Amino acid sequence: MRRGSNGPRVGSYNRKVVLDAVREVEGVSRVELAKRTGLTPQTVSNIVRRLIDEDLVVESGQVQGLMGKPRTLLRINEAAYHAVGVHFDPHEVTCVVVDLGGRVVARATRTPRPGSRPSSVVTLLVKAVESALGRAGLAPESVVGVGIASPGAIDAVGGEVIGPPNLPGWGRVPLRDNVAARLGLPVTLDNDATAAAMGERWVGGASRSGSFAYIYLGTGVGCGLILSDQVFRGSSGNAGELGHVSIDVRGRLCHCGNRGCLEAYISPAAIRADLGGDDLPPGGPQDWSEFARAVAAGDPRVTRAMDQAASRLADATVSLVNLLDLPRIVIGGRGLQGLAVSFSATVQARVNAHAMARGARLVEVTPTIVGENAAAIGAASLVLHSSYSPHLAALLADVP
Amino acid sequence: MRRGSNGPRVGSYNRKVVLDAVREVEGVSRVELAKRTGLTPQTVSNIVRRLIDEDLVVESGQVQGLMGKPRTLLRINEAAYHAVGVHFDPHEVTCVVVDLGGRVVARATRTPRPGSRPSSVVTLLVKAVESALGRAGLAPESVVGVGIASPGAIDAVGGEVIGPPNLPGWGRVPLRDNVAARLGLPVTLDNDATAAAMGERWVGGASRSGSFAYIYLGTGVGCGLILSDQVFRGSSGNAGELGHVSIDVRGRLCHCGNRGCLEAYISPAAIRADLGGDDLPPGGPQDWSEFARAVAAGDPRVTRAMDQAASRLADATVSLVNLLDLPRIVIGGRGLQGLAVSFSATVQARVNAHAMARGARLVEVTPTIVGENAAAIGAASLVLHSSYSPHLAALLADVP
Repeated sequence: MRRGSNGPRVGSYNRKVVLDAVREVEGVSRVELAKRTGLTPQTVSNIVRRLIDEDLVVESGQVQGLMGKPRTLLRINEAAYHAVGVHFDPHEVTCVVVDLGGRVVARATRTPRPGSRPSSVVTLLVKAVESALGRAGLAPESVVGVGIASPGAIDAVGGEVIGPPNLPGWGRVPLRDNVAARLGLPVTLDNDATAAAMGERWVGGASRSGSFAYIYLGTGVGCGLILSDQVFRGSSGNAGELGHVSIDVRGRLCHCGNRGCLEAYISPAAIRADLGGDDLPPGGPQDWSEFARAVAAGDPRVTRAMDQAASRLADATVSLVNLLDLPRIVIGGRGLQGLAVSFSATVQARVNAHAMARGARLVEVTPTIVGENAAAIGAASLVLHSSYSPHLAALLADVP
Repeated sequence: MRRGSNGPRVGSYNRKVVLDAVREVEGVSRVELAKRTGLTPQTVSNIVRRLIDEDLVVESGQVQGLMGKPRTLLRINEAAYHAVGVHFDPHEVTCVVVDLGGRVVARATRTPRPGSRPSSVVTLLVKAVESALGRAGLAPESVVGVGIASPGAIDAVGGEVIGPPNLPGWGRVPLRDNVAARLGLPVTLDNDATAAAMGERWVGGASRSGSFAYIYLGTGVGCGLILSDQVFRGSSGNAGELGHVSIDVRGRLCHCGNRGCLEAYISPAAIRADLGGDDLPPGGPQDWSEFARAVAAGDPRVTRAMDQAASRLADATVSLVNLLDLPRIVIGGRGLQGLAVSFSATVQARVNAHAMARGARLVEVTPTIVGENAAAIGAASLVLHSSYSPHLAALLADVP
């Protein structure tokens, strides 16, 4: 059942629309803001006055148009608020402190021991947050909240991770509430690819508006979906499992129980097994950054394996584009820097040659602009976004 | 860039919210409407008065609660407005006239000659609409508009079909504007599966709220997506090409140019070819309704072929659910009545056993409640829906 909309809701929504427009345009006048948002100059002026009072927006310089008075330019006060983002990857916990502009002001990492119990991972995670906040010189009370990005399936409602990869025996763990209780801060839990997509949207501003998929290559293969400028999480918070799109129903058995999943072919572990697995020298490539180094060094076997991985990624992406008719695909992930350009080129060529509606639109496939720490930055930006960006749903009356 | 929201926009949105609530609940009081929509009793009362003035809502009976005055019940005036829906299928053009309650009040069909030119199909289509309106006893001016549902790729902006199946040499044809010029009515063009999904949402009311995919099995395999109560069309109006999700990247060559597309295995033409194609007796099964009859008659080969088709559909649906994390899948299509129950059962079992987030939610897979003519009814309901249902985007100021 749809809810109606009423005055106070509209006011708070318009406030976020104005704030978002100030964020997207570097230096913008009130007149320009009214044009861009469709709001009256009076409404914009009132909202801007309050944003300045709250220290979220600052006046910064003037510009002289062809006629009339010079116009005062407005900018976001990036240092006004911060959020913490944590990428909970079983191999490494990365924690960043991010300001309102999406800039990382401090970072800390911790390495969980293999097979860690939930309680020790919660402690590790809390220590990483405290360490990053200490480096940033920020007290917890000046922080809006903490976002945790986790691989694998989650229960968004309960804030639980469900059997995370490489941590056997975890089952369901209420990570969100356990961390919140220890830190005394609001905590949100999201899929890591969703977080990375939101980071791309937040940092990329106007160049990442509209709809796109962020393909996140890490230990597995995830995909964050931004549809019409909103995060799309699905009914249980598990949308975007591109790694479990089957490219061959009679293919390899995947750890999820299905056959032919993309992840069973292009996860770093699967690629390493294809390259010879345990027969490789102990120093052989293990993850995307090591594959990238081997390609740069001219290793022909690894180069062929990467070409094949890009090709399989392209196969699944054609299906993704056929289902969602997306105008843009972003590719990123842990250690992927040296490979993202060639992967993007392969996927872009295939999608525009093979997708069903190739006559109707061109799909742009491009490496991430966020780079390393995308999921952690994204987790922080999800906190900032939910506090400071307009959500259409926020226009609606609360459910009683 | 997000647009702001202002007073008149909110008023018109709330009007649609109230109308939608009256539509979804059979017989509802003003007090109940205020509760359901979150609007104040005064706002609801004002909106209802105007809806009654416009003949969209009627008072109908009273109910006595535990205390206080008896409450007047409100119902939608189903006969107040009508829309025409046309399913432009190359084998048969189906035209229905639908009232505000989603009920079909008249129907007409026409069979295009194979290889028809665009101009003669436009004439056929216009005649079908005129014939259906004549049977309904409605003048064109009492009709809100015409929705056309078309298979294959479309250009939503230009209102063009792009190379429809079984009509070689068409290229791009501006079907929307050609039909609008001939009928003097507003015309919209949509994908047939999208239209069927919207028909299911419109007719199903509360039982089809939220998010679902409508898998439409006809000449090909389409899929309409309703995400958070809104039609999701994608950037060019071509979302939902489930038939072109590849289930085997080294599999059969599809007419789209890609390999292993679901449609290359489970379109009626592909199934017939697998059954022996031209060797079959001329009266052998050709489409879903004939397959269904053969299964009902106990034909073991066709029964095996249907089991295999359901299984392949399940394979692709697991990928769909892994990507979109949907709580519900609806299965329908031309002539599928006798098969929809068994297909739904196969797909439901597989999705809940194999999807990645199976631990986080149960997916319901169910036959359509709209049945035959789903795409035509859906095309009409898209017209009614865009006129009378709340769209969040309608809250936003116009782009200048």
